[in-house]
Amino acid sequence: MPIPSENCHVLVNARIFTGDSTKAEPFEGEILIRDGRIAATGKTVTQPKGCALTDCGGRLVTPALIDCHTHLVYGGNRAREFQMRLEGASYAEIAAAGGGIVSTMKATRGASVDELVETALPRLDSLLAEGVATVEIKSGYGLSVEAELNMLRAARRLQTMRPVRIRTTWLAAHALPPEFRDDRRGYIDSVVLPGMEAAKAEGLADAVDGFCEHLAFTAEEIAQVFDKAATLGLPVKLHAEQLSWQGGAALTAARGGLSADHLEYMTEADAKAMAAAGTVAVLLPGAFYMLRETQQPPVQALRDHGCTIALATDANPGTSPLMSLLLAMNMGAVLFGLTVGECLHGTTGAAAQALGLGAETGRIAPGLSADLAIWNAADPAELVNPMGFNPLHTRYFKGRTV
Amino acid sequence: MPIPSENCHVLVNARIFTGDSTKAEPFEGEILIRDGRIAATGKTVTQPKGCALTDCGGRLVTPALIDCHTHLVYGGNRAREFQMRLEGASYAEIAAAGGGIVSTMKATRGASVDELVETALPRLDSLLAEGVATVEIKSGYGLSVEAELNMLRAARRLQTMRPVRIRTTWLAAHALPPEFRDDRRGYIDSVVLPGMEAAKAEGLADAVDGFCEHLAFTAEEIAQVFDKAATLGLPVKLHAEQLSWQGGAALTAARGGLSADHLEYMTEADAKAMAAAGTVAVLLPGAFYMLRETQQPPVQALRDHGCTIALATDANPGTSPLMSLLLAMNMGAVLFGLTVGECLHGTTGAAAQALGLGAETGRIAPGLSADLAIWNAADPAELVNPMGFNPLHTRYFKGRTV
Ligand SMILES: [Zn+2]
Ligand SMILES: [Zn+2]
Repeated sequence: MPIPSENCHVLVNARIFTGDSTKAEPFEGEILIRDGRIAATGKTVTQPKGCALTDCGGRLVTPALIDCHTHLVYGGNRAREFQMRLEGASYAEIAAAGGGIVSTMKATRGASVDELVETALPRLDSLLAEGVATVEIKSGYGLSVEAELNMLRAARRLQTMRPVRIRTTWLAAHALPPEFRDDRRGYIDSVVLPGMEAAKAEGLADAVDGFCEHLAFTAEEIAQVFDKAATLGLPVKLHAEQLSWQGGAALTAARGGLSADHLEYMTEADAKAMAAAGTVAVLLPGAFYMLRETQQPPVQALRDHGCTIALATDANPGTSPLMSLLLAMNMGAVLFGLTVGECLHGTTGAAAQALGLGAETGRIAPGLSADLAIWNAADPAELVNPMGFNPLHTRYFKGRTV
Repeated sequence: MPIPSENCHVLVNARIFTGDSTKAEPFEGEILIRDGRIAATGKTVTQPKGCALTDCGGRLVTPALIDCHTHLVYGGNRAREFQMRLEGASYAEIAAAGGGIVSTMKATRGASVDELVETALPRLDSLLAEGVATVEIKSGYGLSVEAELNMLRAARRLQTMRPVRIRTTWLAAHALPPEFRDDRRGYIDSVVLPGMEAAKAEGLADAVDGFCEHLAFTAEEIAQVFDKAATLGLPVKLHAEQLSWQGGAALTAARGGLSADHLEYMTEADAKAMAAAGTVAVLLPGAFYMLRETQQPPVQALRDHGCTIALATDANPGTSPLMSLLLAMNMGAVLFGLTVGECLHGTTGAAAQALGLGAETGRIAPGLSADLAIWNAADPAELVNPMGFNPLHTRYFKGRTV
């Protein structure tokens, strides 16, 4: 009996980048999709009777891209503050004019879930238009239990409005809100920890994150947040060693965390610990670029120790208003010296691993979700080399063109 | 008698950035469009009977953007070379593998006009999607009379296929082709100058350009090219002082040139001369970014001497594969410290001036072509701050939404 073609689909004449490794060279082959999953791939696959066929015309086919670190849901924007800074205003003047993360906090607290969804949608669409099918979204601008939960409610709702897989992350330990300025302990005890429990209870948190930095939280404070996550069975990840070394990457590795992110100031010992723990190094060149940083993450040390490297947009209103994962790849290559293969693996297989989704998406392999991107390109380099250019031909999510 | 609404259109409830100056603050007002031209603008305009009305909903309205420096037409791509470089290949190894500008020359020579048009279209569409309505396109990869003319024939054809104004530039003095490696004089005498005459005769050249650099042509050689342009009545412009000081900007100013472009190594005296001559400084941060340059153009000197500053993509396959003018603005701000107003003036009024089109487009003023962009934004900063995000709402070309 032939398979109904809506459940069966074969892509032929494709140049396939599997997402399994950082090897940039695609192979010429075929992909069999059945019931929304990749059933087989190889030089040729057996085509069941009645199965729909798409000739890719020699185009590059990759796993659909994965943005494994974003702050896509927030209120307001910080464009005015950007303008003031260019006109010579100091950080103190900007703070006095109501700028900085507090302005985003206020706008986020003042927004309903509907409004958060509405303003996040164009940003999400910007990512999806470039072949993304999985997006991680963090809380961290509400900084009260209810406002943090609302951010994640908005993130979850986005998944019902677009063909996309959303992973949510509880990031209340992102900054200290003004009302807790002199009570760090109080913020952790009355917002970060109980909110995490509420998020878990409501099914709003797939993971827990924090910002470990001299202007945010110490490694000791983050350890308490991670302790709570462990009791709730939530995996952890961390904004670590971005502006200075704080020991966050080592802590995350010690807890078997999914990823440590940013990492400009990480050490060789950190790379070793992360590699041993399987903690992915998520590099975020958008923030590096916007902040005109000069200290690059130690890419060679990550390679030497066999640490898995992922790349993400860090899309956020302040330090990285970057809504293009292709551009994040270009920045990873130009600013951090990543190879083409590392960039594309960093937004497919490695990014899936950073989200604990390695068995579900991010690679072209039997059993995984058929999340694919077909490109008007023959080689991965054609995705990484251009800037502000979108060569997407077709995006597949769970086996359907979207 | 009422005016037929297809010939008359009024935009109300707009926040207008006129493109007249670098002042970023828009004013709340209206724009009257008649017969494809801006008939009036101000706080309010008189609305003729029967005139169509669009409520902009408080959105930002700017002149449609102008990309005043591109190499949008070429054969092949250099993505493989980019990949090799990231994998550690030296320039010699890349040249041995057939890379560098010679590879683009070969691919361009090997392409028909049809093929050049077909491969340029997606790049053009990338610009237009972000509110661009005027694009300058240079020759310079053919490096023979016929191949150079073909590039400009392709550029002209693009104008018949999309709602866009194309300005063409004869840039045979871009590089020395291998067959003239030991005969610089011969290349200028038998290709650059006679080709310019042929381009002029066929109506293919709106201006003449050159690359004045140690690895290209000397200021003396460029002066001969400019002499010929003068006899043909063609305005001149120049790639000048990008990697070293060569005196090209001063030469261009002395000839009353439209613009000098790149300018990282220009001097204060150059800024003074350019300002006095009305020669626009066209900054190209895409190449600066891709080449990881550290010497910034002297923005403060340009301001101090009242030099007009424009910004462009320099879209080209080697040093600036940038197909987003919004991203060029972001790079102008982040990498060169331009203000928001300078960035947006640099892609509207100033860019028009750099193309000799100041009386035709680039500003919202009576008499000019109704080339407009309506944005999902309230302020210019919202165009410059994000990266890889397109807030365009509607583009008008000659009074029609396109
Ligand atoms: Zn972040
Ligand atoms: Zn150029």
